[in-house]
Amino acid sequence: MVVILKQKAKQEEIERLTKQLEAKGVSVSLVVGSDVSILGLVGDTSAIDPSVVAANGIVERVMKVQEPFKKANRMFHPEDTIVDINGVKIGGKKIAMIAGPCSVESEEQIIEIAKEVKEIGANLLRGGAFKPRTSPYAFQGMKYEGLELLKKARANTGLPIVTELMSPYDIETFVENVDVIQVGARNMQNFDLLKELGKTNKPILLKRGLSATIEEWLMSAEYIMAGGNENVILCERGIRTFENYTRNTLDLSAVPAVKKLSHLPIVIDPSHSAGKYWMVEPLAKAAVAVGADGLIIEVHNDPENALCDGPQSIKPSKFAKLMEELKVIAAAVGREI
Amino acid sequence: MVVILKQKAKQEEIERLTKQLEAKGVSVSLVVGSDVSILGLVGDTSAIDPSVVAANGIVERVMKVQEPFKKANRMFHPEDTIVDINGVKIGGKKIAMIAGPCSVESEEQIIEIAKEVKEIGANLLRGGAFKPRTSPYAFQGMKYEGLELLKKARANTGLPIVTELMSPYDIETFVENVDVIQVGARNMQNFDLLKELGKTNKPILLKRGLSATIEEWLMSAEYIMAGGNENVILCERGIRTFENYTRNTLDLSAVPAVKKLSHLPIVIDPSHSAGKYWMVEPLAKAAVAVGADGLIIEVHNDPENALCDGPQSIKPSKFAKLMEELKVIAAAVGREI
Amino acid sequence: MVVILKQKAKQEEIERLTKQLEAKGVSVSLVVGSDVSILGLVGDTSAIDPSVVAANGIVERVMKVQEPFKKANRMFHPEDTIVDINGVKIGGKKIAMIAGPCSVESEEQIIEIAKEVKEIGANLLRGGAFKPRTSPYAFQGMKYEGLELLKKARANTGLPIVTELMSPYDIETFVENVDVIQVGARNMQNFDLLKELGKTNKPILLKRGLSATIEEWLMSAEYIMAGGNENVILCERGIRTFENYTRNTLDLSAVPAVKKLSHLPIVIDPSHSAGKYWMVEPLAKAAVAVGADGLIIEVHNDPENALCDGPQSIKPSKFAKLMEELKVIAAAVGREI
Amino acid sequence: MVVILKQKAKQEEIERLTKQLEAKGVSVSLVVGSDVSILGLVGDTSAIDPSVVAANGIVERVMKVQEPFKKANRMFHPEDTIVDINGVKIGGKKIAMIAGPCSVESEEQIIEIAKEVKEIGANLLRGGAFKPRTSPYAFQGMKYEGLELLKKARANTGLPIVTELMSPYDIETFVENVDVIQVGARNMQNFDLLKELGKTNKPILLKRGLSATIEEWLMSAEYIMAGGNENVILCERGIRTFENYTRNTLDLSAVPAVKKLSHLPIVIDPSHSAGKYWMVEPLAKAAVAVGADGLIIEVHNDPENALCDGPQSIKPSKFAKLMEELKVIAAAVGREI
Repeated sequence: MVVILKQKAKQEEIERLTKQLEAKGVSVSLVVGSDVSILGLVGDTSAIDPSVVAANGIVERVMKVQEPFKKANRMFHPEDTIVDINGVKIGGKKIAMIAGPCSVESEEQIIEIAKEVKEIGANLLRGGAFKPRTSPYAFQGMKYEGLELLKKARANTGLPIVTELMSPYDIETFVENVDVIQVGARNMQNFDLLKELGKTNKPILLKRGLSATIEEWLMSAEYIMAGGNENVILCERGIRTFENYTRNTLDLSAVPAVKKLSHLPIVIDPSHSAGKYWMVEPLAKAAVAVGADGLIIEVHNDPENALCDGPQSIKPSKFAKLMEELKVIAAAVGREI
Repeated sequence: MVVILKQKAKQEEIERLTKQLEAKGVSVSLVVGSDVSILGLVGDTSAIDPSVVAANGIVERVMKVQEPFKKANRMFHPEDTIVDINGVKIGGKKIAMIAGPCSVESEEQIIEIAKEVKEIGANLLRGGAFKPRTSPYAFQGMKYEGLELLKKARANTGLPIVTELMSPYDIETFVENVDVIQVGARNMQNFDLLKELGKTNKPILLKRGLSATIEEWLMSAEYIMAGGNENVILCERGIRTFENYTRNTLDLSAVPAVKKLSHLPIVIDPSHSAGKYWMVEPLAKAAVAVGADGLIIEVHNDPENALCDGPQSIKPSKFAKLMEELKVIAAAVGREI
Repeated sequence: MVVILKQKAKQEEIERLTKQLEAKGVSVSLVVGSDVSILGLVGDTSAIDPSVVAANGIVERVMKVQEPFKKANRMFHPEDTIVDINGVKIGGKKIAMIAGPCSVESEEQIIEIAKEVKEIGANLLRGGAFKPRTSPYAFQGMKYEGLELLKKARANTGLPIVTELMSPYDIETFVENVDVIQVGARNMQNFDLLKELGKTNKPILLKRGLSATIEEWLMSAEYIMAGGNENVILCERGIRTFENYTRNTLDLSAVPAVKKLSHLPIVIDPSHSAGKYWMVEPLAKAAVAVGADGLIIEVHNDPENALCDGPQSIKPSKFAKLMEELKVIAAAVGREI
Repeated sequence: MVVILKQKAKQEEIERLTKQLEAKGVSVSLVVGSDVSILGLVGDTSAIDPSVVAANGIVERVMKVQEPFKKANRMFHPEDTIVDINGVKIGGKKIAMIAGPCSVESEEQIIEIAKEVKEIGANLLRGGAFKPRTSPYAFQGMKYEGLELLKKARANTGLPIVTELMSPYDIETFVENVDVIQVGARNMQNFDLLKELGKTNKPILLKRGLSATIEEWLMSAEYIMAGGNENVILCERGIRTFENYTRNTLDLSAVPAVKKLSHLPIVIDPSHSAGKYWMVEPLAKAAVAVGADGLIIEVHNDPENALCDGPQSIKPSKFAKLMEELKVIAAAVGREI
């Protein structure tokens, strides 16, 4: 941490601040210049809240030098984390394919789609039972009934299931019934929910918030990991920008960035980012090429009549073709599908 | 709602879609052009999910014509809503002043600040007991003990209390003990929390999400109102942009926008938006001039030792001076403080 | 400047870098920590390009401590700059009112509007002769003929004229004929144009780019000032964000920010930021309250038939009413109109 | 174009507006609803300025249905444009590789790099002679001397040269001496420059502005094409967002978007977008996978001593390795390098 001092700071004020900081266990060096002086702090600065230091009257600005996350930090955990979901692994050489409809709509629908994506080669089944919708008047999902149908689809196909949790009230139910608990973009900083999930040992798919920086996203992972649950899978699904041709702007640079900063696996959701079915294919290919550990793709057997996100869903036949093409790209970057 | 059709759309496909739409209770007019044809939908389109229509194979794009919110819509409720908090009103001629520390730190601290801001003329006391922090290692608030101290401060001063709720588990406690429940920016689209709050009749201060559009924000208000609780106060606190000199970019245009679109009162938080104590004064003045119904300002008796947000807190003496200056601006725009 | 070193940096590499930096005339202090070491640079760091240092193999990151602008920096020029335009001053106690149509359309139009705004109390006349339009097929302005009409309007009213320059070819013509040369948002980083303007001594109204940070904006002012022309007036006109209810998001926090960082005057354009005539009034009031040195407002005698920007133009009668209201706010903040 | 009318619009006002619109050569249909009425306009709406219509007192809002660009529009020009640069083609099956240093620094430097990238397989040589820099005190390029050195490098290697133009004064010199004229991100809406370039027939590499929407970018291409020069190559180089880990956010979705909307070729600049040399490789791979027609990559023989952009430049050895890897990905998507 570097503390920029105000020009007017007096000798004794600087000494007082230095002592306060040293009392927190760091060592402090003063660098004096004509226009500006700075304090360089080294050691474990995690006990120091930058904004508390910034509130000191002689401080102009505080700059962080180290990342604030620890358990999620590659520096302290150099090897890649591989999350194991009943034998399906996310984070190793094999790229995980998660596929399924936006929402569970009926037993027939979910089981048919599950069977198709399983046959095509998907490793996990996605499907929303509880749906976060901008409008209170839109379809909110089949809820507990939807969970039951997902379980039937799992029983039929053997595919582990990934589905979104919206309320802490449902954590026990989810831990008991699903294989991967998804935390949606809008709940990425629902810290109470993250803390509760930290107490479980269920794999968590943590979607990036619409306007979350990579650092904030890793801090949300840290919330879960700090509680003891290190089975966190990150999911980039597009960020909000000024561009509105696409629903969101898929930030593929986040993949190498996360790989550098953290040991956690990262998957890409090309369906939600673009919001257009015809962009899923090129974006999925780019995601594999850039180094993602998995893909989560909306597949629906009847997109035109889907109860949600029809415009971004692809049909099983299209998914089958895409799988074949992705295998070639995966091989080209030393991975497999 | 306007549906832009693809060039290749065939007559019978258009007729089929028209019938589907009419079955939802709207009337549909076809406008045929050489390059593009459109369907104009009039009537109550709220039962039609635009994304479902957009998934139709002959549809190029769907454009909404009307706002999707109803209970929050000024069109259906032309008069200003005035929220009454034990006699303190937000939304009328008088501008409400909400003041207090970022977080409750001790009995002495909260009671001293409460007394000071009360004497200076504040109408409500703010203070965080449960704190949403980016880092799991930062101070998370005094929690239930903090609530008890807020109640003591209220007993001492008569000021109603505003404090943030983070978990649905605490709703009952909050309904019983606080006067206004704050929903933080990071929970603006925590739809389950909003639904639960809709079942109470407690006034809700709904902060705008970091990257929420005005429409999404009003849709979150709609979630609460759809449940039966119409006591919603909106709070603009800065949005996330590329500019990083300020912590967030205060969007004061949101005030006239909300006044046009909705009947709900709107207050401004100049402390969180800028993140700098010396910007609170000019931004507070601008907020009153632009037509805000209230201000929520962080006041601390010892900002340098505040446990959070010290850099943006002002001292009571500064707050007193600001109050006097704001009164003159309020008068200039036909309001009072 | 602070240089964060990579963990693996060797003693001799650090010494080599230190010597390179000292050779540029700064003094360098090494602060060694267990996880991270930093170099603190003090003195005149303006000769050091941060990106060149960052390219060094042992450097993790470079953080600037001081603002990179000098002539525009309040630190080196504590007193407010007042730009004098034929006796009309921008930057002092009096708030300058710049009014007129988006574009000059005819002799009758510009002279009628000029007379009206003059009578109402405007200090300068605005009007576009050369228009930057997103589409090559839209009205591009009356060009040189428009300049002549502006001069007639000035002759009729005595109001100095402000108009936008688009090409370096026209600089001489502008210097001869207009009183303030406007650099539009889209040309804020047209560095060649800025350099050429630096060689004149004509007052320049420098609009903030759509996505320019405050620092970049001041660096563009620095380009003009470095050439010798210190008559720069900054103009905030809204930045591009995700919100699309307004055309741009007016960043009023930029006013106190600029006042702190620089000595240059700053005016606000509430017309272009919102893009809606009914927002001009509240935003203009907020601009005066927040401390702006002037306002630039689109006034048209027949907005419905304006050749551009009709939706955001107000009529002279509305402008007259607004002027009266602004005077009261100006007085409330110790200014006058 | 769809015109949403205000509720209060009277019959005769609607008729008057309808006639005005029909006079512009379009046909107008009125769709009347209880809450809202709309006018549907079909035919060639390009003569109608939406903002002029929006200024009409009875108009609530105007929504465009068709893209405003024509010459750049795939609808009117279904086949891919292939730009031919002295035999090197951009836009066909072969992916073009443009490589070279950020700026020309010396004869030795540019010729050495040119030879190396040529040998590795690059098709064009990039190198800045005129450099747009945020600071007036930073290295501004070798200018005309730099152009001469680029020509020597071309003479030595046969590689066509791509370099940035900053001023209309230099157009003739550029037309005579360089093979592709680059328009930088900061000049994307320097409309006067675009118009002048439209009068030449030199290939133009048009970089996307930092906060330009895809539509605005295509409108800038339209400016050049409207003048008669259809040799436009688009270049995505990252957009400005709130994320600051990377210098910009590379928007790879822009590739399929541009391919759908336009027939112009599009290349990707992974160096400027990320601003980090170690991200160039994964982003280049993703660019090829997503369907880009070319890559423009900063290669420097001594990044640590580069006069600009060292942190994002890769060495020739790294570039050689990357080329081999990209060939495999290109083959996987049916292209070649």
